[in-house]
Amino acid sequence: MKKITIGIVGFGTVGTGVIKILRNNKALIENRLGTPIEIKKIVDLDIKSDRGVRLRKGLLSKNVKDIINDPSIDLIVELIGGVQAARSILLDAIKQGKHIVTANKALLASHGLELLNAAHKGGVDIGFEGSVAGGIPIIGALKEGLTGNRISCILGILNGTANYILSKMTDEGGKFSAILQEAKKQGYAESDPTLDVEGLDTTHKLSILRSIAYGTVNSFEDIYTEGISHIEPIDIEFARELGYRIKLLAIAREIDSQVEARVHPTLIPHDHLLSKVDGTYNAIFIDGNAVGPSMFYGKGAGMMPAASAVVSDIIDISRNIISGISQRIPLFSYQKDHLKKIAIKNIQEVETRYYLRFTVFDRPGVLSKISGILGKHKISIHSVIQKGRRTKGTVSIFLLTHQAREASIRKALHEIDRLSVAQEKTMLIRIEDQI
Amino acid sequence: MKKITIGIVGFGTVGTGVIKILRNNKALIENRLGTPIEIKKIVDLDIKSDRGVRLRKGLLSKNVKDIINDPSIDLIVELIGGVQAARSILLDAIKQGKHIVTANKALLASHGLELLNAAHKGGVDIGFEGSVAGGIPIIGALKEGLTGNRISCILGILNGTANYILSKMTDEGGKFSAILQEAKKQGYAESDPTLDVEGLDTTHKLSILRSIAYGTVNSFEDIYTEGISHIEPIDIEFARELGYRIKLLAIAREIDSQVEARVHPTLIPHDHLLSKVDGTYNAIFIDGNAVGPSMFYGKGAGMMPAASAVVSDIIDISRNIISGISQRIPLFSYQKDHLKKIAIKNIQEVETRYYLRFTVFDRPGVLSKISGILGKHKISIHSVIQKGRRTKGTVSIFLLTHQAREASIRKALHEIDRLSVAQEKTMLIRIEDQI
Repeated sequence: MKKITIGIVGFGTVGTGVIKILRNNKALIENRLGTPIEIKKIVDLDIKSDRGVRLRKGLLSKNVKDIINDPSIDLIVELIGGVQAARSILLDAIKQGKHIVTANKALLASHGLELLNAAHKGGVDIGFEGSVAGGIPIIGALKEGLTGNRISCILGILNGTANYILSKMTDEGGKFSAILQEAKKQGYAESDPTLDVEGLDTTHKLSILRSIAYGTVNSFEDIYTEGISHIEPIDIEFARELGYRIKLLAIAREIDSQVEARVHPTLIPHDHLLSKVDGTYNAIFIDGNAVGPSMFYGKGAGMMPAASAVVSDIIDISRNIISGISQRIPLFSYQKDHLKKIAIKNIQEVETRYYLRFTVFDRPGVLSKISGILGKHKISIHSVIQKGRRTKGTVSIFLLTHQAREASIRKALHEIDRLSVAQEKTMLIRIEDQI
Repeated sequence: MKKITIGIVGFGTVGTGVIKILRNNKALIENRLGTPIEIKKIVDLDIKSDRGVRLRKGLLSKNVKDIINDPSIDLIVELIGGVQAARSILLDAIKQGKHIVTANKALLASHGLELLNAAHKGGVDIGFEGSVAGGIPIIGALKEGLTGNRISCILGILNGTANYILSKMTDEGGKFSAILQEAKKQGYAESDPTLDVEGLDTTHKLSILRSIAYGTVNSFEDIYTEGISHIEPIDIEFARELGYRIKLLAIAREIDSQVEARVHPTLIPHDHLLSKVDGTYNAIFIDGNAVGPSMFYGKGAGMMPAASAVVSDIIDISRNIISGISQRIPLFSYQKDHLKKIAIKNIQEVETRYYLRFTVFDRPGVLSKISGILGKHKISIHSVIQKGRRTKGTVSIFLLTHQAREASIRKALHEIDRLSVAQEKTMLIRIEDQI
């Protein structure tokens, strides 16, 4: 094997990082792989901007066909993001027998099965370590290091922007909107941060992890998703007083041979390792039936961490090319005929503990009314605190429930929010404390 | 491929765990691997004790030749520990074309190159994920997920017994010897805990990680090793007051194109994630030049976590067998001709910060004498505290240095310990706070 030849589609931040690693660590990577990796072509619509890396003449092209139709190119790295354009490029490339490395979580979470079938038919490999948690090799850990385990649960902090905002709210106080503005200025949030703060980016990533852990081909749409934009400083503060931190958590869990999958702000005990994951860092906590509790921590985004994952995939597939094999490990860990569509537990049937914050008029008997309604729906109260935080005759009541069914909670809150004393919609945050 | 056939040598704790996983997760593993794994033979000197797993007749044998000479066996799992007997079994097995899975850190740390050469010649694979940090897939992470990175440093808590004792001393107080006794009773320490508490077990593991990170074939003997048995409650307590925790740390670091490798008790900042790794847990903090700071956390020992790693190796090699290949990834990550013996920085040349505790007669001018000697050796003082802990006219002086050279510190302490006011040998603990 003289060399591995690759083409890169998408010369943005991560693409630039990949080029930097392949150059700066060139000797090191060759010493490990045993073969040089050559970048034959880089395709982007913008071939003029300076990305701070010098490129030889002719390396850049605006035409993706220059890569797809080049028979000397073994492997295509797709880093343009978005779903439809990326999908058609990858399907075309697979038809030409190219192996694929992609960090495109939205595409994998929505069209994973289609890509898997195409790759299977074409006998090519698809690497996607960069699609979840940036530089943390969590896909590899699930497909290889933990592959003998039945995965009891996955709890992930998978979005750096959301975690940065929540960490800042926790450490320094302040409202979501103000900190989001600051995060934008500092480059920790995109100009349109919706995907990050409303949870959908986390959902895409959870969908991928769920596929590997449980062998499902479900698209991401059945995952319950709730973002962090409604979290108030008072919730952060009160969670802290109760011994919790609030994190945007991706949760997948096998329970009574059903799988739960949900993304929402979550109270986790302040002494759990996940609570210490601050700023833009990501972490994935996994409990396997042999390995027990484990955690993987690192930078979930950014040029070099994401590129680290992409380069690991390039090297992984190169090792297959050198060995003359492909499809050594199935795309989603399970053999194709053992992948299945599974029924995800509806959020209404989930059972967990809840943090509830009621904003009510400060009238005698209000707590009795609230607890009466909860009791009627068989929701038992773990603890309740009414704090002297009154504005205009309004008071906040903080309540933690014991384990309860989401459907019951929702019914109870529907009733409570219609009480004449109710001033605002009740804040509900789920708790994970059996971890 | 109809099935993968394995033989297990060593029916102890981990061997029993491997059998349990291969049985309890049988369907799951087959769905992932695509092929059943059959245990053909289990060899142990003791074939009578009940290990809580039912075995069919004829599965047990006292004779290792029953495995080595069985041509139907593809892969041998070595779990007897120790160096010489294991070495000769593995070399014999490799000669018979068997692939190897082993968790034998002492063997790999002392005879890694010999095994590598034998495996290379025999065209077989050796898996050793179980040799470091139990269930944490750190070997896989270094060889695959982080393989595009130059590894700046590895900081590992790699011994559960030592970490249990230090955690207990930190959380509940108490002397090393008392807690060690308690740990023995609770099964967290072996009856002869020397390897664990004096650091050598950690050194074996660091030697393996160092080989993979830096492509070295050094045996473990050049790694500076210091255990935890001399740590006093007063050091734990004072470290805490200064904002540190004491951990037995394995440190490998590339610095000015030299490699440092050392094992010793270490002060680390209390807010660093490694400080939160308590009890019998292990963790490895890695800084790579692309991925940045990362951490891998989990159970470092015990039946099922160690077996989780061993089973992941069995599956990994099975995937190679099914694909008809071997040696897809070099044993120590680097291609054979790029492995080298490297010069490890002598401990005398290491530069770091130091915690020093002087036990001296409470006389006027004693601090001036000590700081004078430190100054003479160009060691500058970061902070110093003399606390009112007097017994029989003796006082403790706690001192943190700025960055200093170990040789200078040793010379200074040699002088200080010979002062007439010196009551005890000065306690020296190294600090890692640039992490």
